[in-house]
Amino acid sequence: MADYTFFTNPMSRGQIARWALHEAGADYEQVLVDWKDKPAAFLDANPMAKVPTLIHHADDGDRVITESAAICLYLAEMNPEAHLLPNDGEMADYYRWTFFASGPIEQAITSRALKFEPTPQQEMMAGWGSFERTLAAIEEKLAEDDWVCGTRFTMADVYVGSAIDWGMTFGIIPPLPPLVAYAERCQERPAYRTAKGIDGKLIEEMKK
Amino acid sequence: MADYTFFTNPMSRGQIARWALHEAGADYEQVLVDWKDKPAAFLDANPMAKVPTLIHHADDGDRVITESAAICLYLAEMNPEAHLLPNDGEMADYYRWTFFASGPIEQAITSRALKFEPTPQQEMMAGWGSFERTLAAIEEKLAEDDWVCGTRFTMADVYVGSAIDWGMTFGIIPPLPPLVAYAERCQERPAYRTAKGIDGKLIEEMKK
Repeated sequence: MADYTFFTNPMSRGQIARWALHEAGADYEQVLVDWKDKPAAFLDANPMAKVPTLIHHADDGDRVITESAAICLYLAEMNPEAHLLPNDGEMADYYRWTFFASGPIEQAITSRALKFEPTPQQEMMAGWGSFERTLAAIEEKLAEDDWVCGTRFTMADVYVGSAIDWGMTFGIIPPLPPLVAYAERCQERPAYRTAKGIDGKLIEEMKK
Repeated sequence: MADYTFFTNPMSRGQIARWALHEAGADYEQVLVDWKDKPAAFLDANPMAKVPTLIHHADDGDRVITESAAICLYLAEMNPEAHLLPNDGEMADYYRWTFFASGPIEQAITSRALKFEPTPQQEMMAGWGSFERTLAAIEEKLAEDDWVCGTRFTMADVYVGSAIDWGMTFGIIPPLPPLVAYAERCQERPAYRTAKGIDGKLIEEMKK
């Protein structure tokens, strides 16, 4: 049995988790989830019925991990030999920008995609404030640093890079030069190419 | 100089960070941020101009941490003697539910507070799916376990507990018994009481 069971769908945030699995060098078995016929083991593991969902078959029992960002950080912890964990001096950026991507960036993209924009009065309450301010903050960060933690790729880049990459691919995030350059750096990662190749092929097969 | 400079406002998510600072036993200096007159050091540290923002004056230089959940996890890492970090077997739950609270729960609460509800078609795209499904997932979790990681309080409970506590205080999350019992367990933490006491007093002074 593989170390991990990976419930996914190629056209979903499962692409983030697959990239993370390949960066970590994790041994996984994939279970494709059909939206219309979800497997019982999947529904049992995640009552939200969302992909990606990961089950780690650890020595002391099965552990369920959901939420793409959590899957990324967990895999970094379980595979320290992949050198994707932050050192002491990198840790503030590692957590700050992973939560910035899973919070404000995710909310800014979703609200724009769903055509919901907070009014100026509502911006105080909305954690992302506004789409423009959120983008300006990540643009400034990536104009200064090549990677989330500065000069070195870490697991935080799998999550932050996926958010930027996805937002630009779907035309929601404008192609600001620091973001384009960052996405290109991410796309050069061998694990990114392998993972996207697998999902791309699965999407092609689904179209047949 | 204190180890941390803590930019906050008592009527904000800064309450989460203060509870985390007290759980971690961190030595901090508070700087109150007036919405109308924000200090330059604050704007320099966080272009989003959001509280809480934390500056850690580490031996190798200053480190800025934003996003309430990131502040919690960072403080747990920097203060291992407080025993708020997960062990190997607790790590899946630690990350899963922290990101579940900062993602789906935060989005479900915000969208309801701002009176924006996704249509059934939009639910596929919205990471939280629906308010009801998000609440049902955390209710099921807390009906089974006293704390995020099972039987032991960790830093994840500061963040998840704050989300539940806040949502119920403002009447957005209904008082479901497992959530009420969990919030009460959180409220019994000495660090919770100390932190809320400080913010409560500051709010009283602001009203004068």
